[in-house]
Amino acid sequence: MLNEVKSLNEECGVFGVWGAENANYLTYLGLHSLQHRGQEGAGIVANDGKRLRTYRNLGLLTQVFSKPEFLNSLVGNSAIGHVRYSTAGENKIENVQPLLFDFTDSQIALAHNGNLTNAITLKKELEEKGHIFKSSSDSEVLVHLIKVSNAPTLHEKIIEALNKIQGGFAYLLLTKDALIVALDSHGFRPLSIGKLSNGGFVVASETCALDAVGASLVRNVQPGELITISDSGMEIDHWTNKTQLAICSMEFIYFARPDSDILGINVHSARKRMGANLAKEAPADGDIVVGVPNSSLSAASGYAEEIGLPYEMGLIKNQHMGREFIQPTKELREKSVRQKLAAVKGVVRGKRVILVDDSIVRGTTCAYIVQLLRDAGAVEVHLRIASPRFMHPCFYGIDIQEKSELIAAHKSIPEMNQMFGSDSLEFLSEDGLISAIGLNADAPYSGLDMSYFNGDYPTYLYDYESKK
Amino acid sequence: MLNEVKSLNEECGVFGVWGAENANYLTYLGLHSLQHRGQEGAGIVANDGKRLRTYRNLGLLTQVFSKPEFLNSLVGNSAIGHVRYSTAGENKIENVQPLLFDFTDSQIALAHNGNLTNAITLKKELEEKGHIFKSSSDSEVLVHLIKVSNAPTLHEKIIEALNKIQGGFAYLLLTKDALIVALDSHGFRPLSIGKLSNGGFVVASETCALDAVGASLVRNVQPGELITISDSGMEIDHWTNKTQLAICSMEFIYFARPDSDILGINVHSARKRMGANLAKEAPADGDIVVGVPNSSLSAASGYAEEIGLPYEMGLIKNQHMGREFIQPTKELREKSVRQKLAAVKGVVRGKRVILVDDSIVRGTTCAYIVQLLRDAGAVEVHLRIASPRFMHPCFYGIDIQEKSELIAAHKSIPEMNQMFGSDSLEFLSEDGLISAIGLNADAPYSGLDMSYFNGDYPTYLYDYESKK
Amino acid sequence: MLNEVKSLNEECGVFGVWGAENANYLTYLGLHSLQHRGQEGAGIVANDGKRLRTYRNLGLLTQVFSKPEFLNSLVGNSAIGHVRYSTAGENKIENVQPLLFDFTDSQIALAHNGNLTNAITLKKELEEKGHIFKSSSDSEVLVHLIKVSNAPTLHEKIIEALNKIQGGFAYLLLTKDALIVALDSHGFRPLSIGKLSNGGFVVASETCALDAVGASLVRNVQPGELITISDSGMEIDHWTNKTQLAICSMEFIYFARPDSDILGINVHSARKRMGANLAKEAPADGDIVVGVPNSSLSAASGYAEEIGLPYEMGLIKNQHMGREFIQPTKELREKSVRQKLAAVKGVVRGKRVILVDDSIVRGTTCAYIVQLLRDAGAVEVHLRIASPRFMHPCFYGIDIQEKSELIAAHKSIPEMNQMFGSDSLEFLSEDGLISAIGLNADAPYSGLDMSYFNGDYPTYLYDYESKK
Amino acid sequence: MLNEVKSLNEECGVFGVWGAENANYLTYLGLHSLQHRGQEGAGIVANDGKRLRTYRNLGLLTQVFSKPEFLNSLVGNSAIGHVRYSTAGENKIENVQPLLFDFTDSQIALAHNGNLTNAITLKKELEEKGHIFKSSSDSEVLVHLIKVSNAPTLHEKIIEALNKIQGGFAYLLLTKDALIVALDSHGFRPLSIGKLSNGGFVVASETCALDAVGASLVRNVQPGELITISDSGMEIDHWTNKTQLAICSMEFIYFARPDSDILGINVHSARKRMGANLAKEAPADGDIVVGVPNSSLSAASGYAEEIGLPYEMGLIKNQHMGREFIQPTKELREKSVRQKLAAVKGVVRGKRVILVDDSIVRGTTCAYIVQLLRDAGAVEVHLRIASPRFMHPCFYGIDIQEKSELIAAHKSIPEMNQMFGSDSLEFLSEDGLISAIGLNADAPYSGLDMSYFNGDYPTYLYDYESKK
Repeated sequence: MLNEVKSLNEECGVFGVWGAENANYLTYLGLHSLQHRGQEGAGIVANDGKRLRTYRNLGLLTQVFSKPEFLNSLVGNSAIGHVRYSTAGENKIENVQPLLFDFTDSQIALAHNGNLTNAITLKKELEEKGHIFKSSSDSEVLVHLIKVSNAPTLHEKIIEALNKIQGGFAYLLLTKDALIVALDSHGFRPLSIGKLSNGGFVVASETCALDAVGASLVRNVQPGELITISDSGMEIDHWTNKTQLAICSMEFIYFARPDSDILGINVHSARKRMGANLAKEAPADGDIVVGVPNSSLSAASGYAEEIGLPYEMGLIKNQHMGREFIQPTKELREKSVRQKLAAVKGVVRGKRVILVDDSIVRGTTCAYIVQLLRDAGAVEVHLRIASPRFMHPCFYGIDIQEKSELIAAHKSIPEMNQMFGSDSLEFLSEDGLISAIGLNADAPYSGLDMSYFNGDYPTYLYDYESKK
Repeated sequence: MLNEVKSLNEECGVFGVWGAENANYLTYLGLHSLQHRGQEGAGIVANDGKRLRTYRNLGLLTQVFSKPEFLNSLVGNSAIGHVRYSTAGENKIENVQPLLFDFTDSQIALAHNGNLTNAITLKKELEEKGHIFKSSSDSEVLVHLIKVSNAPTLHEKIIEALNKIQGGFAYLLLTKDALIVALDSHGFRPLSIGKLSNGGFVVASETCALDAVGASLVRNVQPGELITISDSGMEIDHWTNKTQLAICSMEFIYFARPDSDILGINVHSARKRMGANLAKEAPADGDIVVGVPNSSLSAASGYAEEIGLPYEMGLIKNQHMGREFIQPTKELREKSVRQKLAAVKGVVRGKRVILVDDSIVRGTTCAYIVQLLRDAGAVEVHLRIASPRFMHPCFYGIDIQEKSELIAAHKSIPEMNQMFGSDSLEFLSEDGLISAIGLNADAPYSGLDMSYFNGDYPTYLYDYESKK
Repeated sequence: MLNEVKSLNEECGVFGVWGAENANYLTYLGLHSLQHRGQEGAGIVANDGKRLRTYRNLGLLTQVFSKPEFLNSLVGNSAIGHVRYSTAGENKIENVQPLLFDFTDSQIALAHNGNLTNAITLKKELEEKGHIFKSSSDSEVLVHLIKVSNAPTLHEKIIEALNKIQGGFAYLLLTKDALIVALDSHGFRPLSIGKLSNGGFVVASETCALDAVGASLVRNVQPGELITISDSGMEIDHWTNKTQLAICSMEFIYFARPDSDILGINVHSARKRMGANLAKEAPADGDIVVGVPNSSLSAASGYAEEIGLPYEMGLIKNQHMGREFIQPTKELREKSVRQKLAAVKGVVRGKRVILVDDSIVRGTTCAYIVQLLRDAGAVEVHLRIASPRFMHPCFYGIDIQEKSELIAAHKSIPEMNQMFGSDSLEFLSEDGLISAIGLNADAPYSGLDMSYFNGDYPTYLYDYESKK
Repeated sequence: MLNEVKSLNEECGVFGVWGAENANYLTYLGLHSLQHRGQEGAGIVANDGKRLRTYRNLGLLTQVFSKPEFLNSLVGNSAIGHVRYSTAGENKIENVQPLLFDFTDSQIALAHNGNLTNAITLKKELEEKGHIFKSSSDSEVLVHLIKVSNAPTLHEKIIEALNKIQGGFAYLLLTKDALIVALDSHGFRPLSIGKLSNGGFVVASETCALDAVGASLVRNVQPGELITISDSGMEIDHWTNKTQLAICSMEFIYFARPDSDILGINVHSARKRMGANLAKEAPADGDIVVGVPNSSLSAASGYAEEIGLPYEMGLIKNQHMGREFIQPTKELREKSVRQKLAAVKGVVRGKRVILVDDSIVRGTTCAYIVQLLRDAGAVEVHLRIASPRFMHPCFYGIDIQEKSELIAAHKSIPEMNQMFGSDSLEFLSEDGLISAIGLNADAPYSGLDMSYFNGDYPTYLYDYESKK
């Protein structure tokens, strides 16, 4: 479904490199392939062994680095970068990462994907001790905890600090000496390490970013790992041994790029299997199968193949849609929405359409798309959702934190079917989703975080416990 | 295939509206859905019944109209607009259309899609009489011819002028009194007229633009027609009766948006049939069918359906690629190209891939894509092209005018197969293309211009005759 | 007085160079020092002996050439450039000069300072022959006349064309072979030729531009001259022998830069003498003399010196005022105007101020400035104007063409004194102006165009005769 | 002298308003008139009684607030703003003020003009306690000290914090309840409070900003004062009683705007008296007196009046010079410098010029200007400096902190005279400066900080003691 419309946003993508000329440009390339994970801000910190330098700003990566000199100024053989989503209206460059901390005698930079569930409590405690935070993001807490630790080495300080924070996190830390990688104890967010042909290392939220810089996969970071990459190579340690895999199922359903492999499973293929399972569970009597571009195309083709109906391009997304698009007058607003997504009349006219969408969050556009197809001449529209009903908010790194925003939490399937104007509506089952992904880890739900669908959160929620 | 890479560019898209409040904004919406037809310049001329006003510049539509005031200044109930391709390096705003001519006692604006084959000759003749041209485009010749005509009315002057020009043209002219539409005698370029719910008229290069503004199709403009839309309604006339349909086959194969209907035929469906015909003519022994995104996806799905193999997302296009992307150093260039198009390792690894592309023009990226798939683990790559061998340049509105640029004009299929590194290579036949489109007009090649493939140009080529 | 406020605008500045590496950059420097003559648009055409290339746009020179590549693309050893004033709201890049004409077999570029009085008539005649104009400026007429001439050589064609146009003009024409300079038969606009140390030639509206590029003055172009600069050197010819000097007096009073010499007379010194003559003619009983920055400071210091009173900085202009300044709400508008010009309380408090302004055109700001001084504590304000009453419009290159806009044409001195709230008001006499400038040419008014003050236009006004 | 050339930069200007609609716009106007105090960054924090909001960026004020929405978003009846100088190359938005601190339960914003002499020591101490600084500026230390104070009220916390910092400071602090103003114990920087006609208060670095918003002067803030402005009115308190006035003499000589009054003394008038005293102390045998625009014009006119010679515009500054000016090639650099400043040939030719400059810091441009005048024909150039020899760096808010940068610290007057190529060179005496300013306070040097000239620093220098 349309990113802008679904309003379901990943908090970030992270990328790091150690031991490569043009670390700045490699990070730029890596972040570019992670742009789908965050489109509101971007930044890079580079390290030349003596000094860390940064450039960051609000906007898309290519907008932030609108002049080559911005990128060229970031010299050195290692770097970390970040693309970020931030809620609209918060015009705060302070929150754009990586955050770079200049201490009198040293520097440390930080890039974070995830959400800490006890950050508010920790921040209050630190403020009471006189600490001042430079950003309003939860990410910064980690550095304050490192700073106040009395442990003798940076490595031990970091372990002490990581053991105080809760929730979901994939952290990249950069000092002049090392690139440090840490994943939370459930592995909520994907994180992979690759190797360049010259021997240098890269770390990225998704494997598509390894491909983008020509790196080959070395290791998917495991829950609880603390990995240090330096000129001495890669050292794998653990900051905790109490781990249990519970990776975000929405990464497979919606967020990740189809060409990424998460824990060895290709995302496009998993989505195709979701579509196929959905076809088995909830077949519909139709003439053609249509997916909502672009995120639902894999599931739709899987559905079509399984049910033996033609997979058709019944909807088309305008590739030139951008933020610069002029907002119309009220009366013309409906015409403006048509610019984003158009029905293909020549395809759907007179047809019974099986419309496959990857998920329903707020449900605000379902009725619109069904009507679009009817206006274009579809005689029936059967809506099939390639994931279970999304009924519980997320506290590990997705920006849906209010149950009230989730339509499936408040409406029954028949009620939603009526609201959307569809002829029928069905969702994929939880088991159908789990088997489609096929992670098969020795953990609840085969290693998936399924709390979106069943409210079974893998952790205590601390500051958010009351929001459950 | 990638627009940037194929270097095969439509010269323009045109859009006009008469009799609607917000004519400026409707034209903006219409042009936005025609952006794929030209990305180098855009402009609008609006008419409030007293005066014509214009705003135009180099760049994408949303870049040109970067501030709402640029659009808001274009007041009136009628307007014409244009999106344009122009060769790189020619930083000439003078050539961005619509061209607006301010005579001492009147104004006329012009938007043109096509290419005149005798413009050089006509321009020389006019210059010898002392005429001065404001643009270096051929489009302007028409207005000079109108201006020198001694016919008593504008209508007759236009008819006289149209009878002097040769080649391909879909012209929109705007005066304070009327919106005038003219199509060449072979109908090389598509052009359709629609009606708004309020009774106003719109004209557009493709029907997707009618959909974009909520207009319903009234008429596909026919070869030789001269249509005048004014407050008195729509009057259909002919500037010539010597007509014979020969619409550009590349519109169906590559240029037009899949949701457009050309002369009643849906473009996506036609492409799917091209893929199906290709599967019948040139089946391949493979495991999966992969299309080059985005233009070849329809053909690929048709091929897959016909041959009974899975249609897979084996290649993915980065949606955030833009012109602002920083050019890398030489050594990193290859990594930069990967940003545009990536192979989906998890899909193609270990597979025999049937790769469907819509056409081969210069052939510069075929080898690259085949290698991309092999690097991702494909064990075989069978290349199937859903159109015949492109061997002859175009002189009616596409920017390929040199035979030397066309690889199929110089290399045999086995030679190309070797160059591209594919395991096999096959093209769709001319008959396969003609039947897939299914135009069935009472004209050579069922009404298609097939000269790209067979050199059988529907007209004498005048200034270009020597380039045949 | 404030440029923005006086709304009295020079139509342009021109600059040309022949025979110098970096002709583009020299032209940029030259135009930069002529920026005061036109701030709405700028452009350069460069010639590398084979081809003429141009870049131009709306805005200040530094805004137009906002990226070095715009300037760098203009290669060659010769160039002409132009800075332009255009009426607000006319967002027309078409009118920005130099105009470059691409004929099929040649190119010619044109930069013009002045105004043709029979352009409307000539344009109509040419349009009736089918000619189409690319700009709405009068400047373009010359090239059409050259184009239709049947004379055998370009030189003779130009002479024929120049003899058809009337009014004020300083023309620079550039072809691949020569830089051609022409001045009207009265020399309404200043134009000087200089020599670079390398032997190359430069031409400029004012000598400050010669200084800016390190050139030494060779010749002030004389009325009726047609000068051709080429690789063979400089050839001086005449296009007419019926000449009589009548240079614009407002160049001395207001337009030109104080460091320029016009026909050998330094502008600052002339203004100082205007102030001194004004003190003799119209002494006032005051404590201090204050000039309106920046244009009246010379005259004010001359007045102070002559009368023996302190010359004080009683008003100050904000140097950081720019177009980007945000327009305030209505209630705050008055505070916004204070940003442009401020009274220096510490200087004027308790003082009888003699306020010297160079001229009064519309009179819109006089009352405001007098009030500003009173608010700051001035006990008396005696307004002294260092030029005669401006009562007649200009048709030779200044944008005041309506008598109704000129306050002195409609109000007596006592009426104006009351309107402005000043304690007394006096103007310099015509003789006082003529003697201050000291041109002493053998022509009426010593060679000055005094028509602003006495309506005695040196020529018949053709298209404007009725506006006298 | 030219700001860019002298490289002597004020660190900032501050402005605050309490109790006025459009506080955002008033702050914008106020900062605009303080733009000469800092041109590298600008920002505003506004307070609507519930929340503080900020917008800030690198660049000139009008560049930072390039879109009205940036300013409009800053709602509320109170605000503080800041314009800042920062060393070139440090592309750090983090240092642009006002700094806004978001604590979990409150917010505080800070704007600072000055320099703390013990900030490095304090910062180290705080970092050792785990504190993290968001900027690299010294200004931030104050908030950390407030934050760690155990005093019961914010007022007392601030007093405690102020008593720990040393050096020069004019601080504005904004909370949702009050605007707090603090000046160091020597009053190194000027700071004035005004009243709006509606009863609201404004605070500004210079009185020209009060004039800019139509406020009347209420009070010049005194050394050691801590003033709280809230809805209950203005309360004047002291954070220390150990005070002694030592206001920066360079504010009078160079920094402040001529229309400002500092401690009741008009800056232009003081400069004029410096020129007059200089004429008495060091008359020269010349024909005309010329000032270096713009900062030395007042002194030059005072010199001319006193000595009875004509004050002439012998040098002119290009008003359209901006940062956008394209950097030339090496060979053309000299021509580029001419763009900033030009000699008026018509004025200086054949003349013995007495050239008055306000001060000599690095001395880098003196030789250039003398040569400029000689090239323009001056027969003698007598250089007169309207302040004493600048031999000691500043640690209270000016960016000259290295003795090695100061030419007068290393060269004798005859040596400098030879270096500059002038015919004679004289400086104003210390007594001449003190009497010209005429502050007459009961403190050393009549209340002026004269350490630039005599090294007699009014305070111990802490972190900078070794640099004396």
